[in-house]
Amino acid sequence: MNFNLKEAMEVLERTPQTLDCFLSGLSDEWLKCNEGEGTWNVSEVIEHLIEGEKTNWIPRLEMILQEGESRPFPSFDRYSHLNETSEGSIEQKLLEFKMIRKQNINKLKVLIKPELHLELTGVHPAFGVVKVRELISTWVVHDLTHIAQIVRVMAERYRTDVGPWKEYLGILKKE
Amino acid sequence: MNFNLKEAMEVLERTPQTLDCFLSGLSDEWLKCNEGEGTWNVSEVIEHLIEGEKTNWIPRLEMILQEGESRPFPSFDRYSHLNETSEGSIEQKLLEFKMIRKQNINKLKVLIKPELHLELTGVHPAFGVVKVRELISTWVVHDLTHIAQIVRVMAERYRTDVGPWKEYLGILKKE
Repeated sequence: MNFNLKEAMEVLERTPQTLDCFLSGLSDEWLKCNEGEGTWNVSEVIEHLIEGEKTNWIPRLEMILQEGESRPFPSFDRYSHLNETSEGSIEQKLLEFKMIRKQNINKLKVLIKPELHLELTGVHPAFGVVKVRELISTWVVHDLTHIAQIVRVMAERYRTDVGPWKEYLGILKKE
Repeated sequence: MNFNLKEAMEVLERTPQTLDCFLSGLSDEWLKCNEGEGTWNVSEVIEHLIEGEKTNWIPRLEMILQEGESRPFPSFDRYSHLNETSEGSIEQKLLEFKMIRKQNINKLKVLIKPELHLELTGVHPAFGVVKVRELISTWVVHDLTHIAQIVRVMAERYRTDVGPWKEYLGILKKE
């Protein structure tokens, strides 16, 4: 096991500011491109991250602490952000993500005492019994997977533009 | 073709600051982990990015402008940064990357006039004839591929920690 709450929070704390650095002020051509029909653009990825802050990570942690294994988590609809028309600039979305993440890290610090709570368990609707430390590890890797998605979506835009260098660019090989 | 010099520079300008936001102050456990023997840790990726700034992108652009197709580019050793013992903190490396990238963007602005230079050609030692716009597109996607690598390397650390959620995390599926 590599998980450690302090190190996990280092990543969770940095993600919103990192995405703000990278995405604020970018041209719409970067923000609105995707990997083809049914795939997300950069802006939609940020909406999905916000949705997770609202309905996934902290609510599930609270449920484990309050109810343990007595009933499964409500399902998290990973596509729910696509149901709403997404208005607002990328900067507004990034600000919302920064604010809600900050609140949630504060909640995390209050809720979870590493020496007491990491092994507590709840029930995931698909996976069955899961632990607090697995949920928080997943929160971290979920950030990382969506940062990877953002840069992959952007790289896709230049797939043919790079000419023969495509051979050397791992990010363009995942097909 | 999606390439456009202004949009390409938007990404090139943001990468160093983005990596600084994400990596400065991180625990060594995140910075020194890798994906197994022969793979790079986060700190080595930054060294590789610095090396590219010194010996790859701008030198090759200058060579195209000065010598065209008269002789191939010198080979770029993608592993050269591994030959030197890498001293210095991640913050020092990130600062070096920020400074040299800034200088190189200034050079790029002076060297390349989109209406004049994008179709100029040079000779790549492996690929043959390549264009200025392909080289600059590759510089951008090279940034993106190494951001993706950094988050992938970090995610790998929590491969088992996430428990059953591994199923949902695309970044852990690339094996």
